[in-house]
Amino acid sequence: MKAAHIKLLAQVPLLAGLPTEQIDSLAKACRFEQMARGENIIERNDTSRRLYFLLSGQVRMLDVNRQGQEIALAIIDAPTHFGELSVIDGYPRSAAVQATCRCELASVGVRDAETLIYNVPQVSRRIMQNLALVIRKNNLHRQVLQQQNIANRLAAYLLSQLPDDRDTSQDFCIKNMPVQYDMAILLGTTRESISRALTFLNEEGLVRKEGKNLYIQNTEGLRQLLEDE
Amino acid sequence: MKAAHIKLLAQVPLLAGLPTEQIDSLAKACRFEQMARGENIIERNDTSRRLYFLLSGQVRMLDVNRQGQEIALAIIDAPTHFGELSVIDGYPRSAAVQATCRCELASVGVRDAETLIYNVPQVSRRIMQNLALVIRKNNLHRQVLQQQNIANRLAAYLLSQLPDDRDTSQDFCIKNMPVQYDMAILLGTTRESISRALTFLNEEGLVRKEGKNLYIQNTEGLRQLLEDE
Repeated sequence: MKAAHIKLLAQVPLLAGLPTEQIDSLAKACRFEQMARGENIIERNDTSRRLYFLLSGQVRMLDVNRQGQEIALAIIDAPTHFGELSVIDGYPRSAAVQATCRCELASVGVRDAETLIYNVPQVSRRIMQNLALVIRKNNLHRQVLQQQNIANRLAAYLLSQLPDDRDTSQDFCIKNMPVQYDMAILLGTTRESISRALTFLNEEGLVRKEGKNLYIQNTEGLRQLLEDE
Repeated sequence: MKAAHIKLLAQVPLLAGLPTEQIDSLAKACRFEQMARGENIIERNDTSRRLYFLLSGQVRMLDVNRQGQEIALAIIDAPTHFGELSVIDGYPRSAAVQATCRCELASVGVRDAETLIYNVPQVSRRIMQNLALVIRKNNLHRQVLQQQNIANRLAAYLLSQLPDDRDTSQDFCIKNMPVQYDMAILLGTTRESISRALTFLNEEGLVRKEGKNLYIQNTEGLRQLLEDE
Protein backbone atom coordinates (compact mmCIF):
# COMPACT_ATOMS: atom_id res chain seq x y z
CA MET A 1 0.00 0.00 0.00
CA LYS A 2 1.44 3.34 -1.11
CA ALA A 3 0.60 6.88 -0.06
CA ALA A 4 -0.71 7.42 -3.60
CA HIS A 5 -3.27 4.65 -3.05
CA ILE A 6 -4.55 6.24 0.14
CA LYS A 7 -4.84 9.58 -1.64
CA LEU A 8 -6.90 7.99 -4.44
CA LEU A 9 -9.07 6.18 -1.89
CA ALA A 10 -9.86 9.46 -0.13
CA GLN A 11 -11.15 10.81 -3.45
CA VAL A 12 -13.88 8.19 -3.78
CA PRO A 13 -17.12 10.20 -3.29
CA LEU A 14 -18.56 7.58 -0.91
CA LEU A 15 -15.67 8.29 1.47
CA ALA A 16 -15.42 12.08 0.98
CA GLY A 17 -14.87 14.04 4.14
CA LEU A 18 -14.13 11.03 6.38
CA PRO A 19 -11.41 11.74 8.97
CA THR A 20 -7.88 10.84 7.85
CA GLU A 21 -7.60 8.14 10.53
CA GLN A 22 -10.74 6.45 9.21
CA ILE A 23 -9.40 6.47 5.62
CA ASP A 24 -6.05 5.12 6.86
CA SER A 25 -7.67 2.31 8.78
CA LEU A 26 -9.90 1.46 5.80
CA ALA A 27 -6.81 1.45 3.56
CA LYS A 28 -5.14 -1.02 5.94
CA ALA A 29 -8.12 -3.38 5.49
CA CYS A 30 -8.04 -2.98 1.68
CA ARG A 31 -6.66 -5.31 -0.93
CA PHE A 32 -5.13 -3.22 -3.73
CA GLU A 33 -4.85 -4.59 -7.26
CA GLN A 34 -4.52 -3.68 -10.91
CA MET A 35 -6.66 -5.07 -13.70
CA ALA A 36 -5.91 -5.11 -17.40
CA ARG A 37 -8.43 -4.09 -20.07
CA GLY A 38 -11.11 -6.79 -20.49
CA GLU A 39 -10.35 -8.56 -17.20
CA ASN A 40 -13.30 -9.63 -15.04
CA ILE A 41 -13.37 -8.07 -11.59
CA ILE A 42 -16.67 -9.68 -10.56
CA GLU A 43 -18.33 -12.69 -12.19
CA ARG A 44 -22.13 -12.82 -12.46
CA ASN A 45 -23.76 -15.07 -9.81
CA ASP A 46 -20.54 -15.15 -7.79
CA THR A 47 -21.18 -15.28 -4.03
CA SER A 48 -18.25 -13.03 -3.09
CA ARG A 49 -19.38 -10.01 -1.07
CA ARG A 50 -16.41 -7.64 -1.28
CA LEU A 51 -16.98 -3.90 -1.66
CA TYR A 52 -14.87 -2.33 -4.43
CA PHE A 53 -13.39 1.13 -4.86
CA LEU A 54 -12.42 2.04 -8.42
CA LEU A 55 -9.37 4.28 -7.95
CA SER A 56 -8.54 4.82 -11.62
CA GLY A 57 -9.95 3.64 -14.94
CA GLN A 58 -13.45 2.63 -16.07
CA VAL A 59 -15.58 -0.52 -15.68
CA ARG A 60 -18.68 -1.89 -17.39
CA MET A 61 -21.44 -3.74 -15.52
CA LEU A 62 -22.73 -6.60 -17.66
CA ASP A 63 -25.83 -8.73 -17.52
CA VAL A 64 -26.85 -11.42 -19.98
CA ASN A 65 -30.32 -11.79 -21.47
CA ARG A 66 -32.05 -15.14 -21.99
CA GLN A 67 -30.41 -15.55 -25.38
CA GLY A 68 -27.01 -15.35 -23.69
CA GLN A 69 -26.41 -11.93 -25.23
CA GLU A 70 -24.45 -9.45 -23.10
CA ILE A 71 -26.20 -6.22 -22.11
CA ALA A 72 -24.37 -3.42 -20.34
CA LEU A 73 -26.31 -2.04 -17.41
CA ALA A 74 -23.92 0.83 -16.83
CA ILE A 75 -20.43 2.09 -17.50
CA ILE A 76 -18.80 3.89 -14.60
CA ASP A 77 -15.64 5.93 -14.15
CA ALA A 78 -13.19 6.30 -11.27
CA PRO A 79 -13.27 7.46 -8.55
CA THR A 80 -16.30 5.50 -7.42
CA HIS A 81 -17.41 2.41 -5.52
CA PHE A 82 -19.30 -0.68 -6.72
CA GLY A 83 -20.39 -4.10 -5.48
CA GLU A 84 -22.51 -2.77 -2.59
CA LEU A 85 -25.69 -4.72 -3.56
CA SER A 86 -24.33 -8.10 -2.45
CA VAL A 87 -22.86 -6.56 0.70
CA ILE A 88 -26.31 -5.24 1.58
CA ASP A 89 -28.62 -8.10 0.64
CA GLY A 90 -26.32 -11.13 0.65
CA TYR A 91 -27.52 -12.36 -2.76
CA PRO A 92 -25.10 -13.40 -5.52
CA ARG A 93 -23.70 -10.73 -7.83
CA SER A 94 -26.41 -9.42 -10.17
CA ALA A 95 -23.94 -8.30 -12.82
CA ALA A 96 -20.45 -9.06 -14.02
CA VAL A 97 -17.99 -6.19 -13.72
CA GLN A 98 -15.23 -5.90 -16.29
CA ALA A 99 -12.37 -3.41 -16.75
CA THR A 100 -12.81 -1.43 -19.99
CA CYS A 101 -9.19 -0.22 -19.63
CA ARG A 102 -6.32 -0.61 -17.18
CA CYS A 103 -7.83 -0.07 -13.70
CA GLU A 104 -6.56 0.36 -10.16
CA LEU A 105 -8.83 -1.09 -7.50
CA ALA A 106 -9.12 -1.37 -3.76
CA SER A 107 -11.57 -3.72 -2.07
CA VAL A 108 -12.59 -4.80 1.44
CA GLY A 109 -14.22 -7.98 2.71
CA VAL A 110 -17.87 -8.08 3.74
CA ARG A 111 -17.27 -7.49 7.50
CA ASP A 112 -15.30 -4.28 6.93
CA ALA A 113 -17.77 -3.27 4.20
CA GLU A 114 -20.73 -3.71 6.55
CA THR A 115 -19.04 -1.71 9.30
CA LEU A 116 -18.40 1.10 6.84
CA ILE A 117 -21.90 1.03 5.31
CA TYR A 118 -23.94 0.62 8.48
CA ASN A 119 -21.84 2.31 11.18
CA VAL A 120 -20.62 5.47 9.47
CA PRO A 121 -23.67 7.77 9.14
CA GLN A 122 -22.36 9.83 6.18
CA VAL A 123 -21.58 6.62 4.33
CA SER A 124 -25.03 5.12 5.08
CA ARG A 125 -26.66 8.25 3.73
CA ARG A 126 -24.54 8.26 0.58
CA ILE A 127 -25.16 4.56 -0.03
CA MET A 128 -28.91 5.27 0.09
CA GLN A 129 -28.56 8.30 -2.19
CA ASN A 130 -26.51 6.28 -4.62
CA LEU A 131 -29.00 3.38 -4.69
CA ALA A 132 -31.79 5.91 -5.28
CA LEU A 133 -29.80 7.33 -8.19
CA VAL A 134 -29.31 3.84 -9.68
CA ILE A 135 -33.08 3.28 -9.54
CA ARG A 136 -33.78 6.60 -11.27
CA LYS A 137 -31.10 5.91 -13.91
CA ASN A 138 -32.54 2.45 -14.58
CA ASN A 139 -35.94 4.04 -15.22
CA LEU A 140 -34.38 6.50 -17.65
CA HIS A 141 -32.39 3.73 -19.35
CA ARG A 142 -35.57 1.71 -19.86
CA GLN A 143 -37.07 4.74 -21.61
CA VAL A 144 -33.95 5.06 -23.77
CA LEU A 145 -34.26 1.41 -24.84
CA GLN A 146 -37.86 1.98 -25.91
CA GLN A 147 -36.69 4.19 -28.80
CA GLN A 148 -36.92 2.17 -32.03
CA ASN A 149 -34.44 4.11 -34.15
CA ILE A 150 -30.81 3.77 -33.00
CA ALA A 151 -29.91 7.45 -33.64
CA ASN A 152 -32.90 8.39 -31.47
CA ARG A 153 -31.84 5.89 -28.84
CA LEU A 154 -28.38 7.44 -28.79
CA ALA A 155 -29.91 10.93 -28.62
CA ALA A 156 -32.08 9.85 -25.67
CA TYR A 157 -29.02 8.39 -23.95
CA LEU A 158 -26.98 11.57 -24.45
CA LEU A 159 -29.83 13.71 -23.10
CA SER A 160 -30.03 11.43 -20.06
CA GLN A 161 -26.36 12.21 -19.31
CA LEU A 162 -26.87 15.98 -19.05
CA PRO A 163 -26.76 17.35 -15.52
CA ASP A 164 -29.68 19.61 -14.52
CA ASP A 165 -27.41 22.51 -13.64
CA ARG A 166 -25.19 22.69 -16.74
CA ASP A 167 -24.21 25.95 -18.42
CA THR A 168 -26.58 25.95 -21.40
CA SER A 169 -24.65 28.67 -23.28
CA GLN A 170 -21.76 26.24 -23.93
CA ASP A 171 -21.37 22.90 -25.66
CA PHE A 172 -21.67 20.20 -23.02
CA CYS A 173 -18.73 17.80 -22.87
CA ILE A 174 -19.26 14.12 -22.00
CA LYS A 175 -15.76 13.21 -20.86
CA ASN A 176 -14.35 9.75 -21.34
CA MET A 177 -17.27 8.68 -23.56
CA PRO A 178 -17.68 4.86 -23.58
CA VAL A 179 -16.21 3.25 -26.70
CA GLN A 180 -18.56 2.12 -29.51
CA TYR A 181 -18.47 -1.49 -28.29
CA ASP A 182 -19.73 -0.37 -24.87
CA MET A 183 -22.31 2.02 -26.33
CA ALA A 184 -23.61 -0.90 -28.42
CA ILE A 185 -24.14 -3.24 -25.47
CA LEU A 186 -25.52 -0.34 -23.41
CA LEU A 187 -28.08 0.54 -26.09
CA GLY A 188 -28.90 -3.03 -27.13
CA THR A 189 -27.56 -2.78 -30.67
CA THR A 190 -24.43 -3.43 -32.77
CA ARG A 191 -21.20 -1.45 -32.95
CA GLU A 192 -21.91 -0.70 -36.61
CA SER A 193 -25.30 0.84 -35.80
CA ILE A 194 -23.71 3.01 -33.11
CA SER A 195 -21.09 4.14 -35.57
CA ARG A 196 -23.77 5.04 -38.16
CA ALA A 197 -25.88 6.82 -35.51
CA LEU A 198 -22.89 8.90 -34.34
CA THR A 199 -22.08 9.87 -37.93
CA PHE A 200 -25.71 10.87 -38.46
CA LEU A 201 -25.83 13.03 -35.29
CA ASN A 202 -22.52 14.60 -36.27
CA GLU A 203 -23.67 15.40 -39.82
CA GLU A 204 -26.82 16.99 -38.40
CA GLY A 205 -24.54 19.29 -36.36
CA LEU A 206 -25.84 17.95 -33.04
CA VAL A 207 -22.65 16.42 -31.61
CA ARG A 208 -18.92 16.22 -32.32
CA LYS A 209 -16.27 13.81 -31.10
CA GLU A 210 -12.81 14.97 -30.01
CA GLY A 211 -10.61 12.12 -28.83
CA LYS A 212 -12.37 10.47 -25.91
CA ASN A 213 -14.75 13.39 -25.38
CA LEU A 214 -18.10 13.93 -27.00
CA TYR A 215 -19.48 17.47 -27.22
CA ILE A 216 -23.20 18.08 -27.39
CA GLN A 217 -23.59 21.11 -29.66
CA ASN A 218 -27.35 21.30 -29.92
CA THR A 219 -29.42 19.95 -27.05
CA GLU A 220 -32.64 21.32 -28.56
CA GLY A 221 -31.89 19.50 -31.81
CA LEU A 222 -31.49 16.18 -29.95
CA ARG A 223 -34.83 16.78 -28.20
CA GLN A 224 -36.49 17.67 -31.52
CA LEU A 225 -35.27 14.37 -32.99
CA LEU A 226 -37.08 12.44 -30.27
CA GLU A 227 -40.26 14.44 -30.64
CA ASP A 228 -40.33 13.91 -34.40
CA GLU A 229 -40.29 10.11 -34.08
CA MET B 1 -55.84 7.99 15.00
CA LYS B 2 -57.23 4.71 16.24
CA ALA B 3 -55.55 1.78 17.97
CA ALA B 4 -56.27 -0.26 14.82
CA HIS B 5 -54.16 2.18 12.81
CA ILE B 6 -51.20 1.83 15.15
CA LYS B 7 -51.50 -1.95 14.98
CA LEU B 8 -51.43 -1.84 11.15
CA LEU B 9 -48.47 0.56 11.20
CA ALA B 10 -46.49 -1.83 13.41
CA GLN B 11 -46.99 -4.54 10.75
CA VAL B 12 -45.17 -2.58 8.04
CA PRO B 13 -41.95 -4.60 7.50
CA LEU B 14 -39.81 -1.43 7.49
CA LEU B 15 -40.91 -0.81 11.10
CA ALA B 16 -40.92 -4.42 12.34
CA GLY B 17 -39.49 -4.89 15.79
CA LEU B 18 -39.28 -1.19 16.67
CA PRO B 19 -40.10 -0.49 20.33
CA THR B 20 -43.78 0.30 21.00
CA GLU B 21 -42.93 3.85 22.11
CA GLN B 22 -41.19 4.51 18.80
CA ILE B 23 -44.20 3.23 16.81
CA ASP B 24 -46.52 5.34 18.97
CA SER B 25 -44.49 8.47 18.46
CA LEU B 26 -44.28 7.80 14.71
CA ALA B 27 -48.06 7.28 14.64
CA LYS B 28 -48.52 10.69 16.33
CA ALA B 29 -46.53 12.30 13.50
CA CYS B 30 -48.54 10.44 10.85
CA ARG B 31 -51.36 11.68 8.68
CA PHE B 32 -53.87 8.85 8.19
CA GLU B 33 -56.12 8.75 5.14
CA GLN B 34 -58.23 6.51 2.94
CA MET B 35 -58.04 6.41 -0.84
CA ALA B 36 -60.66 5.08 -3.24
CA ARG B 37 -59.80 2.81 -6.17
CA GLY B 38 -58.11 4.78 -8.96
CA GLU B 39 -57.22 7.78 -6.80
CA ASN B 40 -53.73 9.29 -7.15
CA ILE B 41 -51.68 9.22 -3.96
CA ILE B 42 -48.55 10.70 -5.56
CA GLU B 43 -48.36 12.61 -8.86
CA ARG B 44 -45.33 12.16 -11.09
CA ASN B 45 -42.82 15.07 -10.84
CA ASP B 46 -44.48 16.33 -7.68
CA THR B 47 -41.99 17.86 -5.22
CA SER B 48 -43.67 16.52 -2.08
CA ARG B 49 -41.30 14.42 0.01
CA ARG B 50 -43.65 12.55 2.36
CA LEU B 51 -42.90 8.92 3.24
CA TYR B 52 -45.94 6.63 2.90
CA PHE B 53 -47.01 3.49 4.71
CA LEU B 54 -49.58 1.37 2.90
CA LEU B 55 -51.63 -0.14 5.75
CA SER B 56 -54.19 -1.99 3.62
CA GLY B 57 -54.89 -2.41 -0.09
CA GLN B 58 -52.68 -2.31 -3.17
CA VAL B 59 -51.06 0.45 -5.24
CA ARG B 60 -49.53 0.68 -8.69
CA MET B 61 -46.43 2.77 -9.46
CA LEU B 62 -46.82 4.40 -12.88
CA ASP B 63 -44.38 6.04 -15.22
CA VAL B 64 -45.12 7.40 -18.70
CA ASN B 65 -43.02 6.75 -21.77
CA ARG B 66 -42.22 9.42 -24.38
CA GLN B 67 -45.43 8.65 -26.24
CA GLY B 68 -47.40 9.52 -23.11
CA GLN B 69 -48.34 5.86 -22.61
CA GLU B 70 -48.56 4.66 -19.02
CA ILE B 71 -46.19 1.88 -17.92
CA ALA B 72 -46.48 0.24 -14.53
CA LEU B 73 -43.12 -0.08 -12.80
CA ALA B 74 -44.49 -2.21 -9.99
CA ILE B 75 -47.64 -3.21 -8.14
CA ILE B 76 -47.24 -3.50 -4.40
CA ASP B 77 -49.44 -4.84 -1.59
CA ALA B 78 -49.94 -3.74 2.03
CA PRO B 79 -48.30 -3.74 4.48
CA THR B 80 -45.38 -1.83 2.96
CA HIS B 81 -43.82 1.60 2.60
CA PHE B 82 -43.22 3.71 -0.51
CA GLY B 83 -42.06 7.19 -1.51
CA GLU B 84 -38.59 6.87 0.07
CA LEU B 85 -36.67 7.89 -3.09
CA SER B 86 -37.63 11.57 -2.87
CA VAL B 87 -37.03 11.58 0.89
CA ILE B 88 -33.50 10.33 0.25
CA ASP B 89 -32.39 12.29 -2.81
CA GLY B 90 -34.68 15.33 -2.78
CA TYR B 91 -35.61 14.96 -6.45
CA PRO B 92 -39.23 15.11 -7.68
CA ARG B 93 -41.30 11.93 -7.63
CA SER B 94 -40.11 9.50 -10.31
CA ALA B 95 -43.43 7.70 -10.55
CA ALA B 96 -47.11 8.34 -9.91
CA VAL B 97 -48.68 6.12 -7.26
CA GLN B 98 -52.33 5.16 -7.64
CA ALA B 99 -54.66 3.05 -5.49
CA THR B 100 -55.76 -0.09 -7.40
CA CYS B 101 -58.47 -0.64 -4.73
CA ARG B 102 -59.65 1.00 -1.52
CA CYS B 103 -56.48 1.73 0.51
CA GLU B 104 -55.63 2.88 4.00
CA LEU B 105 -52.50 5.00 4.25
CA ALA B 106 -50.32 6.69 6.80
CA SER B 107 -47.65 9.22 5.87
CA VAL B 108 -45.07 11.46 7.53
CA GLY B 109 -43.41 14.68 6.38
CA VAL B 110 -39.82 14.75 5.19
CA ARG B 111 -38.28 15.77 8.57
CA ASP B 112 -39.84 12.85 10.44
CA ALA B 113 -39.08 10.56 7.50
CA GLU B 114 -35.39 11.55 7.52
CA THR B 115 -35.14 11.01 11.27
CA LEU B 116 -36.63 7.54 10.85
CA ILE B 117 -34.50 6.60 7.84
CA TYR B 118 -31.16 7.98 8.99
CA ASN B 119 -31.30 7.75 12.79
CA VAL B 120 -32.85 4.34 13.40
CA PRO B 121 -30.19 1.77 12.44
CA GLN B 122 -32.59 -1.14 11.73
CA VAL B 123 -34.62 1.16 9.48
CA SER B 124 -31.50 2.42 7.63
CA ARG B 125 -30.47 -1.14 6.98
CA ARG B 126 -33.92 -2.17 5.73
CA ILE B 127 -34.15 0.89 3.49
CA MET B 128 -30.86 -0.15 1.89
CA GLN B 129 -31.99 -3.76 1.55
CA ASN B 130 -35.23 -2.64 0.01
CA LEU B 131 -33.52 -0.32 -2.51
CA ALA B 132 -31.18 -3.19 -3.42
CA LEU B 133 -34.23 -5.39 -4.00
CA VAL B 134 -35.85 -2.75 -6.25
CA ILE B 135 -32.66 -2.63 -8.34
CA ARG B 136 -32.58 -6.41 -8.70
CA LYS B 137 -36.31 -6.52 -9.57
CA ASN B 138 -35.86 -3.80 -12.20
CA ASN B 139 -33.15 -5.90 -13.85
CA LEU B 140 -35.46 -8.91 -13.89
CA HIS B 141 -38.35 -6.82 -15.21
CA ARG B 142 -36.17 -5.54 -18.05
CA GLN B 143 -35.48 -9.17 -18.99
CA VAL B 144 -39.20 -9.93 -18.86
CA LEU B 145 -39.93 -7.06 -21.26
CA GLN B 146 -37.39 -8.42 -23.75
CA GLN B 147 -39.64 -11.40 -24.47
CA GLN B 148 -41.38 -10.82 -27.81
CA ASN B 149 -44.37 -13.14 -27.38
CA ILE B 150 -46.87 -11.99 -24.73
CA ALA B 151 -47.53 -15.49 -23.33
CA ASN B 152 -43.75 -15.86 -22.89
CA ARG B 153 -43.56 -12.42 -21.29
CA LEU B 154 -46.29 -13.44 -18.84
CA ALA B 155 -44.48 -16.74 -18.18
CA ALA B 156 -41.22 -14.85 -17.51
CA TYR B 157 -43.08 -12.49 -15.15
CA LEU B 158 -44.67 -15.38 -13.23
CA LEU B 159 -41.32 -17.14 -12.89
CA SER B 160 -39.81 -13.89 -11.56
CA GLN B 161 -42.43 -13.90 -8.77
CA LEU B 162 -41.39 -17.30 -7.40
CA PRO B 163 -39.46 -17.16 -4.14
CA ASP B 164 -36.20 -19.14 -4.03
CA ASP B 165 -37.30 -21.19 -1.04
CA ARG B 166 -40.76 -22.34 -2.16
CA ASP B 167 -42.10 -25.85 -1.65
CA THR B 168 -41.66 -27.28 -5.15
CA SER B 169 -43.95 -30.26 -4.50
CA GLN B 170 -47.03 -28.00 -4.41
CA ASP B 171 -48.65 -25.56 -6.82
CA PHE B 172 -47.34 -22.11 -6.02
CA CYS B 173 -50.02 -19.52 -5.29
CA ILE B 174 -49.57 -15.88 -6.32
CA LYS B 175 -52.01 -14.22 -3.94
CA ASN B 176 -53.84 -11.07 -4.91
CA MET B 177 -52.71 -11.29 -8.54
CA PRO B 178 -52.82 -7.85 -10.24
CA VAL B 179 -55.91 -7.41 -12.45
CA GLN B 180 -55.52 -7.74 -16.24
CA TYR B 181 -55.42 -3.96 -16.68
CA ASP B 182 -52.40 -3.80 -14.34
CA MET B 183 -50.73 -6.83 -15.87
CA ALA B 184 -51.08 -5.13 -19.27
CA ILE B 185 -49.34 -1.91 -18.22
CA LEU B 186 -46.75 -3.90 -16.27
CA LEU B 187 -45.90 -6.03 -19.31
CA GLY B 188 -46.19 -3.27 -21.90
CA THR B 189 -49.15 -4.72 -23.76
CA THR B 190 -52.98 -4.59 -23.97
CA ARG B 191 -55.56 -6.10 -21.63
CA GLU B 192 -56.80 -8.30 -24.48
CA SER B 193 -53.33 -9.77 -25.06
CA ILE B 194 -52.98 -10.53 -21.35
CA SER B 195 -56.37 -12.24 -21.40
CA ARG B 196 -55.36 -14.36 -24.41
CA ALA B 197 -51.98 -15.20 -22.84
CA LEU B 198 -53.65 -16.30 -19.57
CA THR B 199 -56.09 -18.49 -21.49
CA PHE B 200 -53.20 -20.04 -23.42
CA LEU B 201 -51.15 -20.79 -20.26
CA ASN B 202 -54.29 -22.22 -18.65
CA GLU B 203 -55.09 -24.47 -21.64
CA GLU B 204 -51.49 -25.71 -21.59
CA GLY B 205 -52.06 -26.79 -17.98
CA LEU B 206 -49.39 -24.41 -16.67
CA VAL B 207 -51.49 -22.10 -14.49
CA ARG B 208 -55.04 -21.78 -13.13
CA LYS B 209 -56.90 -18.78 -11.73
CA GLU B 210 -59.11 -19.04 -8.64
CA GLY B 211 -60.67 -15.74 -7.70
CA LYS B 212 -57.85 -13.27 -7.04
CA ASN B 213 -55.23 -16.02 -6.76
CA LEU B 214 -53.20 -17.52 -9.56
CA TYR B 215 -51.74 -21.01 -9.09
CA ILE B 216 -48.61 -22.03 -10.95
CA GLN B 217 -49.11 -25.73 -11.70
CA ASN B 218 -46.08 -26.44 -13.82
CA THR B 219 -42.98 -24.34 -13.25
CA GLU B 220 -40.90 -26.52 -15.58
CA GLY B 221 -43.49 -26.03 -18.33
CA LEU B 222 -43.22 -22.24 -18.00
CA ARG B 223 -39.42 -22.48 -18.22
CA GLN B 224 -39.68 -24.77 -21.27
CA LEU B 225 -41.86 -22.18 -22.99
CA LEU B 226 -39.12 -19.56 -22.64
CA GLU B 227 -36.39 -21.90 -23.81
CA ASP B 228 -38.36 -22.87 -26.91
CA GLU B 229 -38.66 -19.27 -28.09
